[in-house]
Amino acid sequence: MALYQRWRCLRLQGLQACRLHTAVVSTPPRWLAERLGLFEELWAAQVKRLASMAQKEPRTIKISLPGGQKIDAVAWNTTPYQLARQISSTLADTAVAAQVNGEPYDLERPLETDSDLRFLTFDSPEGKAVFWHSSTHVLGAAAEQFLGAVLCRGPSTEYGFYHDFFLGKERCGTLVDLCQGPHLRHTGQIGGLKLLSNSSSLWRSSGAPETLQRVSGISFPTTELLRVWEAWREEAELRDHRRIGKEQELFFFHELSPGSCFFLPRGTRVYNALVAFIRAEYAHRGFSEVKTPTLFSTKLWEQSGHWEHYQEDMFAVQPPGSDRPPSSQSDDSTRHITDTLALKPMNCPAHCLMFAHRPRSWRELPLRLADFGALHRAEASGGLGGLTRLRCFQQDDAHIFCTTDQLEAEIQSCLDFLRSVYAVLGFSFRLALSTRPSGFLGDPCLWDQAEQVLKQALKEFGEPWDLNSGDGAFYGPKIDVHLHDALGRPHQCGTIQLDFQLPLRFDLQYKGQAGALERPVLIHRAVLGSVERLLGVLAESCGGKWPLWLSPFQVVVIPVGSEQEEYAKEAQQSLRAAGLVSDLDADSGLTLSRRIRRAQLAHYNFQFVVGQKEQSKRTVNIRTRDNRRLGEWDLPEAVQRLVELQNTRVPNAEEIF
Amino acid sequence: MALYQRWRCLRLQGLQACRLHTAVVSTPPRWLAERLGLFEELWAAQVKRLASMAQKEPRTIKISLPGGQKIDAVAWNTTPYQLARQISSTLADTAVAAQVNGEPYDLERPLETDSDLRFLTFDSPEGKAVFWHSSTHVLGAAAEQFLGAVLCRGPSTEYGFYHDFFLGKERCGTLVDLCQGPHLRHTGQIGGLKLLSNSSSLWRSSGAPETLQRVSGISFPTTELLRVWEAWREEAELRDHRRIGKEQELFFFHELSPGSCFFLPRGTRVYNALVAFIRAEYAHRGFSEVKTPTLFSTKLWEQSGHWEHYQEDMFAVQPPGSDRPPSSQSDDSTRHITDTLALKPMNCPAHCLMFAHRPRSWRELPLRLADFGALHRAEASGGLGGLTRLRCFQQDDAHIFCTTDQLEAEIQSCLDFLRSVYAVLGFSFRLALSTRPSGFLGDPCLWDQAEQVLKQALKEFGEPWDLNSGDGAFYGPKIDVHLHDALGRPHQCGTIQLDFQLPLRFDLQYKGQAGALERPVLIHRAVLGSVERLLGVLAESCGGKWPLWLSPFQVVVIPVGSEQEEYAKEAQQSLRAAGLVSDLDADSGLTLSRRIRRAQLAHYNFQFVVGQKEQSKRTVNIRTRDNRRLGEWDLPEAVQRLVELQNTRVPNAEEIF
Repeated sequence: MALYQRWRCLRLQGLQACRLHTAVVSTPPRWLAERLGLFEELWAAQVKRLASMAQKEPRTIKISLPGGQKIDAVAWNTTPYQLARQISSTLADTAVAAQVNGEPYDLERPLETDSDLRFLTFDSPEGKAVFWHSSTHVLGAAAEQFLGAVLCRGPSTEYGFYHDFFLGKERCGTLVDLCQGPHLRHTGQIGGLKLLSNSSSLWRSSGAPETLQRVSGISFPTTELLRVWEAWREEAELRDHRRIGKEQELFFFHELSPGSCFFLPRGTRVYNALVAFIRAEYAHRGFSEVKTPTLFSTKLWEQSGHWEHYQEDMFAVQPPGSDRPPSSQSDDSTRHITDTLALKPMNCPAHCLMFAHRPRSWRELPLRLADFGALHRAEASGGLGGLTRLRCFQQDDAHIFCTTDQLEAEIQSCLDFLRSVYAVLGFSFRLALSTRPSGFLGDPCLWDQAEQVLKQALKEFGEPWDLNSGDGAFYGPKIDVHLHDALGRPHQCGTIQLDFQLPLRFDLQYKGQAGALERPVLIHRAVLGSVERLLGVLAESCGGKWPLWLSPFQVVVIPVGSEQEEYAKEAQQSLRAAGLVSDLDADSGLTLSRRIRRAQLAHYNFQFVVGQKEQSKRTVNIRTRDNRRLGEWDLPEAVQRLVELQNTRVPNAEEIF
Repeated sequence: MALYQRWRCLRLQGLQACRLHTAVVSTPPRWLAERLGLFEELWAAQVKRLASMAQKEPRTIKISLPGGQKIDAVAWNTTPYQLARQISSTLADTAVAAQVNGEPYDLERPLETDSDLRFLTFDSPEGKAVFWHSSTHVLGAAAEQFLGAVLCRGPSTEYGFYHDFFLGKERCGTLVDLCQGPHLRHTGQIGGLKLLSNSSSLWRSSGAPETLQRVSGISFPTTELLRVWEAWREEAELRDHRRIGKEQELFFFHELSPGSCFFLPRGTRVYNALVAFIRAEYAHRGFSEVKTPTLFSTKLWEQSGHWEHYQEDMFAVQPPGSDRPPSSQSDDSTRHITDTLALKPMNCPAHCLMFAHRPRSWRELPLRLADFGALHRAEASGGLGGLTRLRCFQQDDAHIFCTTDQLEAEIQSCLDFLRSVYAVLGFSFRLALSTRPSGFLGDPCLWDQAEQVLKQALKEFGEPWDLNSGDGAFYGPKIDVHLHDALGRPHQCGTIQLDFQLPLRFDLQYKGQAGALERPVLIHRAVLGSVERLLGVLAESCGGKWPLWLSPFQVVVIPVGSEQEEYAKEAQQSLRAAGLVSDLDADSGLTLSRRIRRAQLAHYNFQFVVGQKEQSKRTVNIRTRDNRRLGEWDLPEAVQRLVELQNTRVPNAEEIF
């Protein structure tokens, strides 16, 4: 924060475009003087050119605004900033750049011809990018001026910006030329800027890599917004699933199995509750769970195409004994060759084998095969982190084999499945349809029809959706699903993908109603996606305060004194027998109120306090983790109520108990 | 059976010991004459020696029988057979051999000194072994005499016997000398003999392997017993789990994943019901389920000792990229070396890592960690068959970390766990305690104490148990459990094993009540063992007529006419919503009675028939798979009743509905 104050002192007001680099340094090196000279020269030429153009053609042009409004402007003279001021002073103050006919544009660059104009503010992702791009120049200027740093890359990122510097002799003075802009009108627009981290990075030039310094930061139009962000970030750090996982003893990692998670009893409890939830949905929705092997001959992966496209990400297994010298008694070498095996990275090929293992009839379709099988993917060690990216995970993976006539209904019920599950989990979501990319495989008519069906299904589903034209997989169009957690952060978990290729590769067929053999369409779908990853998202979303049905801390029974310990154990056993998670806190070293407080801090949904009265009446005195007092309940009734609340998977059991 | 008649024609009465080989062949080869000559010579010498011994010492000896009875006999003269006749003619007729001071003994071999004598009959495993050993000589004699076969190995097996023959030129005439006996008194004791199969086998001599013929058979004291066995075998074949698995579409196998099972929807249903059952028991019994990775660095297996002792049975995985040439930019090779990984064959080392991942206190013990993780073992392809032996399977595996003081209570509750589960599954069982073998590891005092604790626990448990002295593992004593299925066949599924070594190898410690660090004892235990294998045992035991709670054929709804189809679907949906498996048979091509019959043949526990009356009254007319008519029930009540019967896991839901 001390450094941040110094950036503020710079007050480089009035700087435009890349003029940030013109800030005077006390004893400028020679190349800096050269650069400044060159810039001033080019800048003067540009100013002159604009004036000349304005003089040559002083014509009126029409500028269209997003709402349909049209404004007159003077070609080569009127700037977007002037128009913003005409519209409102708030807009002029908050606009960070413009888009002119879809192109990014400095606010003070004169308009040239009839154009569509849109103002970018900090609220939009494009506006943030401009804002943070300018902020990284502020950082760069300060590093150059005060530290003598040579500037290298300095991009904006999804959550702020960073700048790489060289603190040695290497030259980097062409940065002015390389910068496309647009930029803020002046640095005074940057109301708050905070440096976040300092690390090293590599400059990838043609020779050996140089080590650079990377400083990352974030900035906002006002200090108020920076404060809000700081509070949000603190909350997000508190909610980091790795932190919660450790504090709540949900899971841990170990160097002897990198990229795989060890789920401790409490984490397994959450995990199993998620799987049970999806299983219950499967029963309602006509999905059939199956179990398929983990190891398959690479012949399978050749057939599916994974061996060609995905081999680098797969774990191959040598058949035992294959590395030993062939026995002296063998008359030929073939006797010892067995197939190489590989751990499955996906379930689809196994489900295709299952579809094909006997003749199929149209009466069996749609066939919806679901599988929680363990998948292995050889992710690079650098990409591993918590539950977000693992080498071993399970999905709520299902494949639907159906006729083209059934496609629309199936897609609609997949969407409905998503909505139901995300509603229970407390996630909002956003859908996008990705259509055929260049180089797609298969019959264009089939693609037309499928894309039409997906659009129709999305339309009837009634939720807003975006079109990502050309963003589909080569084997079929898909619906991407981004869920939003309680902090509003997006995560891609669910997916609905059509596949025209696997049914061909596995020659899948069924006997149609008319008697002829037909080829099914395959839908890949998942709602949770990786169960592990979703568990991490949920942990962060609820900040460790799990809803009752998922909670590994459902009830703690607290005897007032040691005389009630036996009864407390009975109560605990009743809860356990009903399938509830219950612990006992009979720690006589702590007062009752301290133990209640401890349970609430540990986020136990409910505390059952039992004193002499409760013991004699076979009741429990119930409190919630928010310290609401629910009073005295008969023990069996309380247990029954919790079971109901658990089974209905309500998000707020403590409130509606 | 034609061949069987010819064996009977041999009538090689009066043969003793290996004299079977003296059967005359029409044109004996020269070596046969030599062998016969040698045998007659040795036999004469033996007869002479016995007579001389009898003359030298005609003393009376005391023979003790199992009940405590003592009989006088004449040394070198009286035979066990003579004593059997003294006792009863039935015994003389049914005895197949004797045990003298624990050693096997021909019935007609004179007794030599004071001895404990026990008669073996066909009823005992030892008696069967003698019977089938003699029977294989009958088979051998016939093959030699009629086919000119050269005899090789011919042992008795658990279920009969086989004989390997060479039908070429190789010599095998020393078989007479190699045979230890004892044998039946004469082949007339073999009342029924049946040949079962003919296959090839390999003779493992020093040179290249020779291909032999293997003929397998079984034999019995009477033809009646053979008939009974034939009926039993037919029943067992009908119940073969591979047959049931195919007919009921429970599972299948595929060459692209040899030794791994694909569980179809119905098989997965049974599988999940078994797992859910064990999970429910875990909740009651204080076990905590965890999930551990599948892939571990071989460093883990070195630490656990598996890499030294079990490596040949493990699947090793090359880290991806390890077979690629190192990048040109790498300055040393270590950058590219990553650990070799291996698929876990057992869960115990992972659970040890979990125990050790943070400091533990005595307050946490006993810690009972349960894991359904997939295990991989590189079984030889020859050993694979159905669900009995797989390369990939899951166990209801748990490891209990406890103090020595807690050991007895833990062992007792493990035994109680076994008994409860087997009772629900309809299995009886037999326990055996295996104590320290020669070469055991660890402190003898600890072994003494542990064996004492196991004995005490077994005694208090109250079920009969055997002592297998010296049969324990080198790392600790164990309790073997053999369950008996509905056909009385034994299967080893559950186990309870103590382990003193793994806690040492992983340096497991907890803070004891007095504050010092102490080492826990580890108990490995499983009740089902491999879930896959137990599923196979269950399929055979119930012959495909699954109890309701496990059944993949719980209810079929049958509309009388097409007008009731909608209501039938509603009924089906009600059942599904309650978590029951329900199908619909609306096949209008079949009469109602034919559809009911079809459902009963498919072993649907219940048929819900719905006609016009049922539709209007919202009821169902219920029948069982044994065609018991349970009459008309309100639909919700019927569903509720089924849910109750499912949840209580009764074996006979159809009877007590």
